[in-house]
Amino acid sequence: MIDKFFNPSSVAIIGASDKPGKVGKVILENFLKKFNGKIYPVNPNYDVIMGLKCYKSVRELPEPPDLAVIVIPAPSVPEVLEELGAKGTKAVIIISGGFRETNTPQGEMLEEKVKEIAAKYGIRIIGPNCIGIFDNWSGVDTFFLPEEKMKRPPKGYVGFISQSGAFASAIIDWMAYNNIGVSRAVSYGNKVDVDDVDLLKFFMSDEKTKIVLMYLEGLKTSRGKEFIKVARELVKVKPAVIYKAGKTSRGSMAAASHTAALAGDYSLYKSAIKQSGLIEAESFDEIMDIAKVFLTQPLMNGNKVYVVTDAGGVGVMLTDALTSQGFEMPRTPPDLKEELRSILPPHCIVENPIDLTGDTDDERYMKVLERILPRKEVDAVVVVALPQVPGIRGLLADYLIEAKNKYGKPIIAVAIGGEEARKISQKLESGGIPVFESPERAAKALKALYTYSMIKKEV
Amino acid sequence: MIDKFFNPSSVAIIGASDKPGKVGKVILENFLKKFNGKIYPVNPNYDVIMGLKCYKSVRELPEPPDLAVIVIPAPSVPEVLEELGAKGTKAVIIISGGFRETNTPQGEMLEEKVKEIAAKYGIRIIGPNCIGIFDNWSGVDTFFLPEEKMKRPPKGYVGFISQSGAFASAIIDWMAYNNIGVSRAVSYGNKVDVDDVDLLKFFMSDEKTKIVLMYLEGLKTSRGKEFIKVARELVKVKPAVIYKAGKTSRGSMAAASHTAALAGDYSLYKSAIKQSGLIEAESFDEIMDIAKVFLTQPLMNGNKVYVVTDAGGVGVMLTDALTSQGFEMPRTPPDLKEELRSILPPHCIVENPIDLTGDTDDERYMKVLERILPRKEVDAVVVVALPQVPGIRGLLADYLIEAKNKYGKPIIAVAIGGEEARKISQKLESGGIPVFESPERAAKALKALYTYSMIKKEV
Repeated sequence: MIDKFFNPSSVAIIGASDKPGKVGKVILENFLKKFNGKIYPVNPNYDVIMGLKCYKSVRELPEPPDLAVIVIPAPSVPEVLEELGAKGTKAVIIISGGFRETNTPQGEMLEEKVKEIAAKYGIRIIGPNCIGIFDNWSGVDTFFLPEEKMKRPPKGYVGFISQSGAFASAIIDWMAYNNIGVSRAVSYGNKVDVDDVDLLKFFMSDEKTKIVLMYLEGLKTSRGKEFIKVARELVKVKPAVIYKAGKTSRGSMAAASHTAALAGDYSLYKSAIKQSGLIEAESFDEIMDIAKVFLTQPLMNGNKVYVVTDAGGVGVMLTDALTSQGFEMPRTPPDLKEELRSILPPHCIVENPIDLTGDTDDERYMKVLERILPRKEVDAVVVVALPQVPGIRGLLADYLIEAKNKYGKPIIAVAIGGEEARKISQKLESGGIPVFESPERAAKALKALYTYSMIKKEV
Repeated sequence: MIDKFFNPSSVAIIGASDKPGKVGKVILENFLKKFNGKIYPVNPNYDVIMGLKCYKSVRELPEPPDLAVIVIPAPSVPEVLEELGAKGTKAVIIISGGFRETNTPQGEMLEEKVKEIAAKYGIRIIGPNCIGIFDNWSGVDTFFLPEEKMKRPPKGYVGFISQSGAFASAIIDWMAYNNIGVSRAVSYGNKVDVDDVDLLKFFMSDEKTKIVLMYLEGLKTSRGKEFIKVARELVKVKPAVIYKAGKTSRGSMAAASHTAALAGDYSLYKSAIKQSGLIEAESFDEIMDIAKVFLTQPLMNGNKVYVVTDAGGVGVMLTDALTSQGFEMPRTPPDLKEELRSILPPHCIVENPIDLTGDTDDERYMKVLERILPRKEVDAVVVVALPQVPGIRGLLADYLIEAKNKYGKPIIAVAIGGEEARKISQKLESGGIPVFESPERAAKALKALYTYSMIKKEV
């Protein structure tokens, strides 16, 4: 098991430093800030670093650390790994580059040595040539970008696995900015040992992770079957979204240069993804849009969606987008039509999309939603509330947040505009109603929720 | 011609008011703020409104106003229109609702009367049931949402035609927030007279408009051929982007309820759009992404694109996205490879995408771009500069802005992250380099530029 990587009670940082710009400095600072276990800096050049006793070598450590983080030059890594093995450490993150990714005989030889030593002592390795782990709950943080370059997101429930270190750090920074809570993120670099399959297994039983996101270029060929098996188990418990890079022939060539990944035939991956019940995100936007919906919404019982709008045009756009995604937008049944007509001014449209028009106020929305949300014709509702409309003052947001819990059906919103739209969006999103600027993106994200709802019924 | 709508030297506002919440108040205030011509409020209940002499009726006006804006209840509109005709006014915007859109015999009769009177006097009409015109250069502004509900964007070069009033106001608000300059926006409501074809003609010769955006549900059947003809002329002069709503059968049903538009068979529209050389945006995001690129970038000579990145993963994503859009990403020729190797550290990748890796600084980008931009293998460059990388400090932004002008080739950027990414994006965008968070959206927007570049060569 790889739990020790995420919940060690002690960590050794080999190559710890206090020199500005050094990776060993940023990582030590990260741990000092948030990690509650014991921290052992290791560096022959110091007696004390940042107020901590510094050890000359691994041999001198007073106990085998649960986790070791290595940030020294590649040629010295095998020796240190031997020492760690002899000491009894079982989890090692090798941040250092200079291995197989250099495409040199020396780099390959060093990587082979690392594998041998790890096998000899039963050490699990993340890396080399990686940024490692950012764990928001335990404080393990080897992402060697200082706070001013990469903000840390709030504690939360998104787990993230990335074959690209730079992409992982960009996404972490993005999630911090967008206030999306993260549980743990891992970027495994050359993955000599711990890989996607191990991480999926870990996230499956990790109670702090409610949704798993994954950026993948390619699996090791030998791991294909196991990947599908583990993914199928995972999606019984929680949803997982995958972005597969290297889809085109030119793209997989780029992936080969990047991580030496065998991006492989995309059609094979596509069918594996489908078989495993993973949700595939086809663009950067989709990864995050889908995450927002999964984090906040209950599953769908069926594919019937109602739209309630104050802007006829956006109602039309949504109708196109939703039906293109395969949703049914049921016609309003006669009894409901009559009921809605009795509470709405005559110029409102009671057909689905229900158009409350530009003279609506919050109350008109609430009256309508109160009547459609309990109906069996409604598996989810998309609410368009353009804040340019004078009667929209904010009550609606409170109502939607309440209604989602009361009726246990997904409610998502579309808002387009400037300051006001942002204010309403923030209020809604902090209450668990995801908001989209684009009708098309709203429809795609809802589709992912529907797809997973159906997968969940099957598995 | 319909120029008088946009550049009147005098305007009468029939139904002007000073009562809070009244449409006639917001519109009068709009004109007072920005319009330099004469303003004649008309309302029998006032002698003076907001410091202006108020006229009891149109008959009392000292001159025929170039433009009249009508905001009184529908049943009184025909009489006022008669008076305006007799007076000699040739351009009238009817904001008032209560016409054909009500689906009542009375509404239809009123609309017929409006048409008759307009024909009798040769009056051109925008509306009824519309929000009319927002003209950033002349100060004509009948968009009756006050500034606190809908911000006004800076003066600029985007012209916008919308069949949906609410969508138009949302987009205007959005553009204000995103600092995109607008020339003139029109929403024509029931379009008894002035329609898409007239407006395309106007925008064709309007020197303040450099790109036309259009939200369309349906054309009047009789105008199909003329639409194609005018659009073909327009695109010889400037690009035009169209978003067609009501694409699906359920969507065109919604459009019929919304604007009584015959959304018609989408495949017919699709081929008409293609024939006319309009660029079709398939999502809300695309409308704005494409506008950003057209506003700032020179046309492309061919379809060969280079990517320069500091994040291998984003390079792979872009390679997929660009080649999926039909772009060629040429392999780096031997002489250029050699040249790049001589200036780059050995771990950088000189194949396209060129990967400068996470230890790059601004200067490394500049050295590389300086060598690839002049090459014939390069028709456009996409630069990925993830700001999490410590060496990215901002110089690159200045260089890119300069380089775009120096080499006359499109340069667009991808940046993902939080505060830092936003800062760099703002700097780049204010210098004319559009920035995207999503590799897929960058590729789609560039594709639109390429498509128009090829159309421009043909027409």
